Amino acid sequence: SVNPDLASERQTASFCVERLTALLDGGAEQTQIRRAVVEAIESDPVFSRENQYFQTQNERYEAAVRKAVHLHKKMHEMGWTENGPEYKYIYRALSGDVAFLLHRVFMRSISVLGSDKQIAKWIPLASQLKLIGSYSQTELGHGTYLQGLETTAVFDTATQEFILNTPKISAMKWWPGDMGRSATHTVVFAQLYIHGKCYGIHPFIVQIRSLQDHSLCPGITAGDIGPKMNFEHTDNGYLLLKNVRIPRENMLSKFCEVRPDGTYVRQGSQKINYFTMTTVRISLIADEVLTPLMKACTIAIRYSVVRRQSKLKPGEQEAKILDYQTQQEKLLPQLAAAYAFHFTNDYLQELFNRGYREIQRKNFDMLPELHALSSGFKAVITQHCTAGVEICLRACGGHGYSLLSGLPSLYTKILASCIYEGENTILLLQTARFLIKCFMAASAGQPVPPSVTYLAAVKHGKCPAKNKLDFLSPDIYTEAYQHVAVRLTSSTAAKLQDLIQSGVKKHDAWNQCTVQLVQAAKAHCHYIAVKNFAETVEKLETKAGIQKIMKHLCDLFALHGIFSNTGAFLHDGYTSAAQMDMVTASYLDLLAVVRKDAVPLVDAFDFTDKSLNSALGSSDGHVYQRLYEWAQKSPTNQMSPAYERYLKPLLHNTLSKL
Amino acid sequence: SVNPDLASERQTASFCVERLTALLDGGAEQTQIRRAVVEAIESDPVFSRENQYFQTQNERYEAAVRKAVHLHKKMHEMGWTENGPEYKYIYRALSGDVAFLLHRVFMRSISVLGSDKQIAKWIPLASQLKLIGSYSQTELGHGTYLQGLETTAVFDTATQEFILNTPKISAMKWWPGDMGRSATHTVVFAQLYIHGKCYGIHPFIVQIRSLQDHSLCPGITAGDIGPKMNFEHTDNGYLLLKNVRIPRENMLSKFCEVRPDGTYVRQGSQKINYFTMTTVRISLIADEVLTPLMKACTIAIRYSVVRRQSKLKPGEQEAKILDYQTQQEKLLPQLAAAYAFHFTNDYLQELFNRGYREIQRKNFDMLPELHALSSGFKAVITQHCTAGVEICLRACGGHGYSLLSGLPSLYTKILASCIYEGENTILLLQTARFLIKCFMAASAGQPVPPSVTYLAAVKHGKCPAKNKLDFLSPDIYTEAYQHVAVRLTSSTAAKLQDLIQSGVKKHDAWNQCTVQLVQAAKAHCHYIAVKNFAETVEKLETKAGIQKIMKHLCDLFALHGIFSNTGAFLHDGYTSAAQMDMVTASYLDLLAVVRKDAVPLVDAFDFTDKSLNSALGSSDGHVYQRLYEWAQKSPTNQMSPAYERYLKPLLHNTLSKL
Repeated sequence: SVNPDLASERQTASFCVERLTALLDGGAEQTQIRRAVVEAIESDPVFSRENQYFQTQNERYEAAVRKAVHLHKKMHEMGWTENGPEYKYIYRALSGDVAFLLHRVFMRSISVLGSDKQIAKWIPLASQLKLIGSYSQTELGHGTYLQGLETTAVFDTATQEFILNTPKISAMKWWPGDMGRSATHTVVFAQLYIHGKCYGIHPFIVQIRSLQDHSLCPGITAGDIGPKMNFEHTDNGYLLLKNVRIPRENMLSKFCEVRPDGTYVRQGSQKINYFTMTTVRISLIADEVLTPLMKACTIAIRYSVVRRQSKLKPGEQEAKILDYQTQQEKLLPQLAAAYAFHFTNDYLQELFNRGYREIQRKNFDMLPELHALSSGFKAVITQHCTAGVEICLRACGGHGYSLLSGLPSLYTKILASCIYEGENTILLLQTARFLIKCFMAASAGQPVPPSVTYLAAVKHGKCPAKNKLDFLSPDIYTEAYQHVAVRLTSSTAAKLQDLIQSGVKKHDAWNQCTVQLVQAAKAHCHYIAVKNFAETVEKLETKAGIQKIMKHLCDLFALHGIFSNTGAFLHDGYTSAAQMDMVTASYLDLLAVVRKDAVPLVDAFDFTDKSLNSALGSSDGHVYQRLYEWAQKSPTNQMSPAYERYLKPLLHNTLSKL
Repeated sequence: SVNPDLASERQTASFCVERLTALLDGGAEQTQIRRAVVEAIESDPVFSRENQYFQTQNERYEAAVRKAVHLHKKMHEMGWTENGPEYKYIYRALSGDVAFLLHRVFMRSISVLGSDKQIAKWIPLASQLKLIGSYSQTELGHGTYLQGLETTAVFDTATQEFILNTPKISAMKWWPGDMGRSATHTVVFAQLYIHGKCYGIHPFIVQIRSLQDHSLCPGITAGDIGPKMNFEHTDNGYLLLKNVRIPRENMLSKFCEVRPDGTYVRQGSQKINYFTMTTVRISLIADEVLTPLMKACTIAIRYSVVRRQSKLKPGEQEAKILDYQTQQEKLLPQLAAAYAFHFTNDYLQELFNRGYREIQRKNFDMLPELHALSSGFKAVITQHCTAGVEICLRACGGHGYSLLSGLPSLYTKILASCIYEGENTILLLQTARFLIKCFMAASAGQPVPPSVTYLAAVKHGKCPAKNKLDFLSPDIYTEAYQHVAVRLTSSTAAKLQDLIQSGVKKHDAWNQCTVQLVQAAKAHCHYIAVKNFAETVEKLETKAGIQKIMKHLCDLFALHGIFSNTGAFLHDGYTSAAQMDMVTASYLDLLAVVRKDAVPLVDAFDFTDKSLNSALGSSDGHVYQRLYEWAQKSPTNQMSPAYERYLKPLLHNTLSKL
């Protein structure tokens, strides 16, 4: 039976939930395949996450290894392959709670960076899990700036070996997943030296643990870096190398080779290398960023219609907290953002596929635009979704703070996405560099990539909106976003030029503009996200209420962005104060409209109760029973030695007195 | 030896660090007393927090109980008393990592709500820890809205007892600290019924566990609510009551009494009751909110001068990350906020002391203002400081994400302060209700409390600043903040009246204005914080560079607030776009100025390495060594059964092939 407060929300849906689910999945067949995978995974007790919130880091690690080994077997049983249609749903179904994810990166780096011979040797072993790989790039003292890595690989012509060392403590490899306890091999990035000359960073396959007894190999010191905010299931590790010798054949040599005599040879184009980072940044958006926000919205919104607190109208029953405007203002913009960025992700995927096809035809022209967009959106989406999950958590009050709500672990995990695969500020500055370059080119009448042609068309008009309904017109708000992006880019470009012309050195001038450059990059991405959402809505089927509700969400996403950032739109008078009041009015009206469909909109994400793993978000709305039943199973309800040791001696003397 | 990158930062301090520490402490004698307490606590191994990040929830609980019992003994040994000057430093020295904090609330509620006879019976037992108390107000289904509590206490004239019940699952007490496993007694808040009539919420002392063997008393079901985002050391509990009988004398009866025949008698004024919430909200600011932000700033800023990454100038050494404008823009406003809110706290304490004196003279006139300010500032400061700690965490990249940085636990703990002792949105709406009321009164020419007299003087001028230096004048920016607070309050009051006049019911109209009411309440508090900081700086000694550096921080705090919220200042043209560009210029200039003193400014907080408990923030700056040494002690570096169970069977077949 479903809690009537939740059931009533579903009866009034303005659209067909199943059809929206199919839209999100990319077609009803995809929905079917996804559900089959989820069913297979969730019905298998080895993959259970039920006890996750009660487990120690050691227990989480062990469970993740057990699941990874079991998954290997399961894939064979089910006939799932890495190229099959099911593959992309497996990780989502496991909620990422599995080991050997870096093993895949190990394999991918060999496939991309290795010679055919190296691929033929290592990939079959790795894909059969006859070794366990990791990927060792980041060092204790070095992350962002790859050229600064301190690990060295010196070629010894006499023995035809590379000698690897981490010469200082800051050179120690730090963070590589699967390396702390599991990996037998890893790809180490090190400065290559031949005859005393440095050739820069190159990748080397290094065995770190014995295949016989798993003991550390000679010269290797390795272990686990200890507790983190999340990722307890992953053995992020450290690695010290002391005169570790590996054969010449272990340098991954698709692009660079060291000949037996020490001759260094470059071959082929390395441009494709940059493409790998783009791939990773785009691919993490769906699973690591959008899914957690969608789960958090599902949990918080379902909870907000079964939680009743205080009276909205005197004499009535206590109100559902989602009926309060302030609660709507917290949650519904996050829901709109989840949809907006889902469609942004589609846009990026399409762009990426196009770029990939071009690259295979040896045309690298799209690379700068792809790099700028994937960097900027990685930063903007991770930042926005992390903040969104936190808002969902807080909006559930005390119960959101319990691990059993599922929200704390969603938050502590998604937070990492702001840091890994390129720290967000650094990434936004990459996007900004591209924008400034394109703005200068466009100003000089040179051609620029499609996503930035708008920079050439600087308009000095005013927003034409005359009443609050005008702000529900995508043309009106998209134009406003465009105007802000152009203004921020052009004004920062002007400041940069002014500084340089006044004698400030180029790098100092750049540094003095970085706070504003970051703003420009964000505005650019925000504009593209709004424009893309509006264009997507335009193309949607009008049947079953889908287009209408998506239009509301698009409006809400756009107006929330203006409402939360009024200064950017008011600054040069493009939007007047009177117009801003219209934005506010339309925005607050929209909250009440979207609120009606809030539950159906999260139902459409189609998360199972097991995948939410939340006492607050279950599909039947029986929050309090679930919290109570679950809490009773906590290890903190077992006998504690604290009573015998500390409390009994105090309390025993009290007896006679009460 | 100190890391030279950190040492060099201290050599150029523009002010005397020790003098600033004394200012923060409220005098050099206070500094001395505080340091003596810290020394006594930190030299005692029982209070060590060294293993905290490695411990399970059960281990944390046990350690907290051990510390609480030991502290009880230690206080006697040291001659520390609850009324002595050392007392307030003990909790800070322990970083709150101790049990029985709710035991103190139990005692305070008896002292405030109990009759003299009840105080005489219970307080001596409690202060000798011959029983362990808790405080049971919040229920599974009820937090904010006290009138909605569902627990009942029915008076039985025949036996002269109250019969307590939690009639539904949502009535179960949920969250009370020290109750899950430790408490023998608790103060239960329940709806009082006499002869079938409900008299509302009253407090009752209920024994829940045997003093003989700690078993649960008849009719009691209780336990621990399980894992949370933090507070692992606290046994937050649940409590079900089924026909639990307690004697008539156990209803706390300073203000209300039930006579043997069932007559209900009110006595004295209950107004002082509201004062208790005010007390708690103000008292938590220093220890629970400011200290964590100050610690986070110390950790992140020290790390940011020893971490070098990328090159700022070509050909030079990699740069300290604090030299990047974007890093300064993340951290330095948090540092300024920590100082700003420290002085806000002084202001609130003073106001509170004045209010307390008045109340003792039976003058309750200050209560509404005190309630509004303590509610608003509780919300604004917890919100601002929580966001600040998160920014510090993210600004440290991957290392900030390690528990060993200390930042994750600071964040997950301070986050709770946004929820407990009044959820922030609810509190801001209380402040807003006061503002609207005062605004109406002021408009009608009636007198209003001192902190809101400014609402009467609505000015329609423009900001007079002519160049960027004008924005370093406190008059200029304080006036701007005042203008925004007045505008937001008056425009929301107008909207509210318009709605009501157009026929919308009062409660609906209120709900439709709440998003804007929250904005007005925040603007009011922000204005008072800026004004108070500016006035404090004015009065500071000019010696030893103290006033000068505090002036910079005050400017930074004020301009950061404008820069991050430009729309509020631009909206009605009070500040022009050209003036906003001046604000931006002055703000960015200030970052570079304050950056020079960043390390001395965090040194002045005077945290010991043990109290920071952070691999990144130690006073000697040897970050990498500390991370490495500490990580090696992690339980995740012990042998795992995962190898034998899962990895060995896979890997053993590989042997012959490599």
